[in-house]
Amino acid sequence: MHRIEQHACFGGRQEVWQHDSSTLGCAMRFGVYLPPQAAQGPCPVLYWLSGLTCTEQNFITKAGAQRYAAEHGVILVAPDTSPRGEDITNDDGYDLGQGAGFYVNATRAPWARHYRMHDYVVEELPALVDAHFPTTTARGVSGHSMGGHGALVIALRNPGRYRSVSAFSPIVAPSRVPWGERAFEAYLGDDRAVWKQWDACELLRDARERLPLLVDQGGDDEFLQRQLRPELLRDACAAAGHPLELRMQPGYDHSYYFIASFIGDHVAHHARALHA
Amino acid sequence: MHRIEQHACFGGRQEVWQHDSSTLGCAMRFGVYLPPQAAQGPCPVLYWLSGLTCTEQNFITKAGAQRYAAEHGVILVAPDTSPRGEDITNDDGYDLGQGAGFYVNATRAPWARHYRMHDYVVEELPALVDAHFPTTTARGVSGHSMGGHGALVIALRNPGRYRSVSAFSPIVAPSRVPWGERAFEAYLGDDRAVWKQWDACELLRDARERLPLLVDQGGDDEFLQRQLRPELLRDACAAAGHPLELRMQPGYDHSYYFIASFIGDHVAHHARALHA
Repeated sequence: MHRIEQHACFGGRQEVWQHDSSTLGCAMRFGVYLPPQAAQGPCPVLYWLSGLTCTEQNFITKAGAQRYAAEHGVILVAPDTSPRGEDITNDDGYDLGQGAGFYVNATRAPWARHYRMHDYVVEELPALVDAHFPTTTARGVSGHSMGGHGALVIALRNPGRYRSVSAFSPIVAPSRVPWGERAFEAYLGDDRAVWKQWDACELLRDARERLPLLVDQGGDDEFLQRQLRPELLRDACAAAGHPLELRMQPGYDHSYYFIASFIGDHVAHHARALHA
Repeated sequence: MHRIEQHACFGGRQEVWQHDSSTLGCAMRFGVYLPPQAAQGPCPVLYWLSGLTCTEQNFITKAGAQRYAAEHGVILVAPDTSPRGEDITNDDGYDLGQGAGFYVNATRAPWARHYRMHDYVVEELPALVDAHFPTTTARGVSGHSMGGHGALVIALRNPGRYRSVSAFSPIVAPSRVPWGERAFEAYLGDDRAVWKQWDACELLRDARERLPLLVDQGGDDEFLQRQLRPELLRDACAAAGHPLELRMQPGYDHSYYFIASFIGDHVAHHARALHA
């Protein structure tokens, strides 16, 4: 593992690292923000999962989260959104293949060999981060759009592993919207029963842990009705008795301007749980 | 003039507009952030001038300034850094031609026809902004690197026009560093006496107004000793009795991570003068 970027930022350091991932079978990059408190002792980690087409760069350059991480003494880790490289299976669409790993473990050829973003984010990356940076065992997970789906699914599939979870504009029911249907058919095959293991609204039915969900959704998001459908999350949480704070934000769209406007609330939400 | 982007952001709106510039003879884009206060009445305007290679996008997506503008009720305007288009003279280098207008009025062929960024930023753009947005007459100017040079020179050349000025990592003495020498020779010709009219350290000698300068400079900036040379600004201000707050920031580099870390201080500095 080697560092390819390092910048002072809000009294801490924004870094980018590259390593050879055994889970994904390729070189991967991730961003890590070390707040000033990390120079004094271990800090909890908030994992951020980005959306379609993003690399590790989008969140670290556009969200402005470092200010809040520095206030709260939280390390931020932002991985890439899929395996990468010329040898890695890809697709011409922006919503499948590289940049679109959907945080699942693919089971279907030709994707199954490299597309194992769930295990990468849940197992390999945290082990690497904990070995190289001054972390406590307290972890939170958040993300945007495809990454909001990733954050919800990863928290729900791994009870006890995360102390906090939140999402911006998540794909809450990928089994029932075009983005998710296309990706799940490619990565997981035709059996829709299998898809339920990767769908937040389905996983909520049998959730073994009642981690409160904080979700922000822009009211003018162009993908609201066709791809995101937050009402399905609201209904699923109501049916399961799962705590949800769903904040509809009038006028906001799907962009990082929306994320930047509310990421401070999310970092504070995670910090409360992570420092408790 | 037509709007090509609009995003809700920190309770206000980040927009991008395009118009045909008579000064530059081409279509130009600029970003404008309207804070929530602009919905209630006129607000002062802080002009931001970006550095080499930038468009109107860099500052609006990476600096995180909207949060502070929303706190202080300040409109932010971020123009492009040069005339643009296939028909506009260009150069293969990143530091001359498109993306590198240096905020001067070029006098030498083939640049003189379009490269008039000083007049665009000082005359045409403010007239356009004042006609289309709820502005007061109070203006400030700031910028980064080439744009820090632009902010200092524009404020010094136009006494009475700006109430506040600041800069990040400015090229304080373009007549004496490689970036400036290359650009000035192309845009202004060989007569170095002419260059002095576009060099902040030279203009300080005869400044008719003592607008306090706030300058932040990263201590680990890769361009510090060869291109930026803040000690020349310190000496020029001392010789002229011009008020300067030069803050050397240890460990910080030339990137937007540096700007993001301190832009809040700059917006507050401008807001104090603009609301006075």
